[in-house]
Amino acid sequence: MTDEIKQEKYKELMNYWKKSFALGSALTLFSWDTETLAPQDAVDMTSQILGSLSEQAQKASTDPNIGVLLNELGDGEGLSEAQRADIKLIRKEYEDLALIPTEEYVDYTMLQSRAVVIWTKAKKTDSYEAFLPTLKELIAYKKKFAGYKQKDGMSIYDTMLNDFEEGFTTKELDKFFAQLKDTIVPLLKRVVEKNDSIDTEFISRTYPADKQEALSRFFAAYIGFDFNRGVLAQSEHPFTSGFHNHDVRITDHFYENKLDSAIFSALHEGGHGIYEQDIPDELTMTPSGCSMSMGIHESQSRFYENMVGRSEHFWKPLYARLKEAFQKQLEDVSVDKFVRAINKAEPSLIRTESDELTYCLHIMIRYELEKRFIDGDLKPERLADEWRALYKEYLGVEPQTLSEGILQDIHWAQGAFGYFPSYAIGNAIGAQIYHQMRKDLDFDTLLEEERLDVIHEYLRTRVHVYGASKSARDILKELTGEDFNPAYYTEYLKEKYERLYEL
Amino acid sequence: MTDEIKQEKYKELMNYWKKSFALGSALTLFSWDTETLAPQDAVDMTSQILGSLSEQAQKASTDPNIGVLLNELGDGEGLSEAQRADIKLIRKEYEDLALIPTEEYVDYTMLQSRAVVIWTKAKKTDSYEAFLPTLKELIAYKKKFAGYKQKDGMSIYDTMLNDFEEGFTTKELDKFFAQLKDTIVPLLKRVVEKNDSIDTEFISRTYPADKQEALSRFFAAYIGFDFNRGVLAQSEHPFTSGFHNHDVRITDHFYENKLDSAIFSALHEGGHGIYEQDIPDELTMTPSGCSMSMGIHESQSRFYENMVGRSEHFWKPLYARLKEAFQKQLEDVSVDKFVRAINKAEPSLIRTESDELTYCLHIMIRYELEKRFIDGDLKPERLADEWRALYKEYLGVEPQTLSEGILQDIHWAQGAFGYFPSYAIGNAIGAQIYHQMRKDLDFDTLLEEERLDVIHEYLRTRVHVYGASKSARDILKELTGEDFNPAYYTEYLKEKYERLYEL
Repeated sequence: MTDEIKQEKYKELMNYWKKSFALGSALTLFSWDTETLAPQDAVDMTSQILGSLSEQAQKASTDPNIGVLLNELGDGEGLSEAQRADIKLIRKEYEDLALIPTEEYVDYTMLQSRAVVIWTKAKKTDSYEAFLPTLKELIAYKKKFAGYKQKDGMSIYDTMLNDFEEGFTTKELDKFFAQLKDTIVPLLKRVVEKNDSIDTEFISRTYPADKQEALSRFFAAYIGFDFNRGVLAQSEHPFTSGFHNHDVRITDHFYENKLDSAIFSALHEGGHGIYEQDIPDELTMTPSGCSMSMGIHESQSRFYENMVGRSEHFWKPLYARLKEAFQKQLEDVSVDKFVRAINKAEPSLIRTESDELTYCLHIMIRYELEKRFIDGDLKPERLADEWRALYKEYLGVEPQTLSEGILQDIHWAQGAFGYFPSYAIGNAIGAQIYHQMRKDLDFDTLLEEERLDVIHEYLRTRVHVYGASKSARDILKELTGEDFNPAYYTEYLKEKYERLYEL
Repeated sequence: MTDEIKQEKYKELMNYWKKSFALGSALTLFSWDTETLAPQDAVDMTSQILGSLSEQAQKASTDPNIGVLLNELGDGEGLSEAQRADIKLIRKEYEDLALIPTEEYVDYTMLQSRAVVIWTKAKKTDSYEAFLPTLKELIAYKKKFAGYKQKDGMSIYDTMLNDFEEGFTTKELDKFFAQLKDTIVPLLKRVVEKNDSIDTEFISRTYPADKQEALSRFFAAYIGFDFNRGVLAQSEHPFTSGFHNHDVRITDHFYENKLDSAIFSALHEGGHGIYEQDIPDELTMTPSGCSMSMGIHESQSRFYENMVGRSEHFWKPLYARLKEAFQKQLEDVSVDKFVRAINKAEPSLIRTESDELTYCLHIMIRYELEKRFIDGDLKPERLADEWRALYKEYLGVEPQTLSEGILQDIHWAQGAFGYFPSYAIGNAIGAQIYHQMRKDLDFDTLLEEERLDVIHEYLRTRVHVYGASKSARDILKELTGEDFNPAYYTEYLKEKYERLYEL
């Protein structure tokens, strides 16, 4: 095949891909809309529309002509690196989906959209029984789907992990989490003993929602989120969504009695958003511009939330602005007092509201349970109790209700098993990048001089521009000269909390 | 064919229809999102997604299997009335679209999404030249498309009219508009002479946007719009959108120096919204629940905006609420003064801001021009001047800029030719229904007693429940015992304005 014919075939392949991308975008917009705006009674009827769009999307992604073209193109020899990356990503999606019988897939997507509604109600009424049958169905489907594509030497759960983060296995994660546990659990005990020294009472004074919203917009823009190519809306749980590098969407929530929640969500989602906006024009709306590593994604959000947003150097020039917005509420709060409060660590029940030190323990609990109910013999009926037991063991706290226990997260209701670990991987990647960045840049001074653009540019050129055309491990290797190494993360936490608590 | 087989075939046909309905819903959501929320720089890239979705929608609507099934089902003998209505509507859409070569259709939809952007810029820079080439392209496509399906004895413009309002021809509309002109033009002259007697200065005092928004929500709910199955958002021009009877969306805009604009837009869009929410569960998300008559739709919005919203009886129990929201601004304004002000008529340049009396003159100008540049020999190059001349002739005012002249409306940029007349038809239908309603109900007393539910129920059971399963003319005949008769509209205007101005 001449290179010219190969280019033709590649173009043809991309035309098929664009159809399923457009359908995927429609599903993304419906899901954004449901979380941010749609009326409360819409969901049952709208799920019929979603069922049809999913069916058409699956059909488009598994069009037999795609198989023929993939066959003809092979690994894309003679094409550009980016084009070859596209082919690889299309092949993965095609092979995964083509193995699932259409009818099964449609039944599953209808279940998925019902499942979120059922979970929402179950959480409200605090009834695990109301969610259990649906959860069992979801697990059964997802095990079946993973079974279709399971490869030699990989367990079903490994296969699921690979959907979210390629190249990470339970073997590696077991080691990573063991290391985390060994560091954090004893460190947390020492921290808790000295917690009286940090006063956080002022955090729960009354902060009007409209002022919080204005500040969230300010902080997102301050770190580099471009509002000409993005929006911020309100939803129960903050998240990031989008279609291409000119339309990236973040959400935030505003609790009048929590000063920090909206600010750090804005920095977190802003970090995700910057990454998406930095995907180059030639990659956006191609496979390489879409299916980025979850770990890299989370590394960017956690970096901006924690390494940037919780630093005393970040707040030095900015705290006056916060005081101006909340003059009365922060009258007696110095910047030092503020920075200590936003870094306080203590065991808690809710993952999304947990501090930087304990966050990964929440992930570890979910990881251990997933491994056991996917690959092992833990019955879903036993999950609520096991959840309670692990919280007690690792964090020393016990949920009193199911909505602050097993029912707190939406992810399982969305059928996402094997997803949680990518949060921990992201934290570790963020710390590894941060370690290198401190060698290359005068990080603290840049924060104090409000030169966030320099930090942004560092990440843009070394991480963001690649999208999914490079794997997380390759990006790390090129940037730090080293493979994924979670030791930086545990060291970072140890150093930070020993300093903060003068341990 | 047995009735059982017919039911099977009907079901199969509906499955095909549901695919294109889902794609159409996705396009509707993208368009809603673009008007209400999407970031300013998104449009170029997003239009590629829209191009692909439109292409897939057209393919789905013209799937050859639909043709086979329609052939087999004929006119649906042996099926229910609603099912036969579905078949009729699917056949119309199929035949219309199947006649257009796919490539042409795709080129046109891409042009359409670019066209709105080009028009927006042209309007901002006040340059007709910037829009003219695009307008000419749009006209050429639309004439071509109408040509494909033109029937004997119908002109191209008649064919276009039929797309929006079945069964109305230029012959009938010429008569209707002549009647309107003969009544309104002299009436308006007499009105204008006495306009000093109505003081509207207070309308342009300062009314904060957030209070206006709260009132818009109140008024929409007050007339019957259900916020559990609907939302209100903000956009430059108010409009109504939606997916099914459980998700209906209206928008409003808030000008701080115009008290009336947001209120009457909320009542207008609320009227559209109530209609959509009243479509029964068994019709929603079927052809009969979707493609309702534009005239009936507009009759409902104009009815709530004008017959309800501008009535002194409506305001009697409600005006105190308005005064409470704007205590200082309305301190010296009595309910009588307020009601006279919101009914004042005077010649103006902008259709969407015009009063009840002059509104149809704006429509008439567009109708005459469309007829001449579609069926006649008026060159688009001459449109801006002809526009100016007709405004001078009918309304006695002359636009000084193009954005308050030929460039004011979005409709032509959307490729909608033959659409404007349905606004006038809607006003006339509304007046005809109103005439009958006053015979059947004690209308003024119901308004004073805040029994809007009785009026809503009257319309629900006689108009809304049918969706598109009955034509506008059939609905009118059943409700009033008479075919479409625009005399009620001219009589209504004459009686109202002679009374208001004591002529």
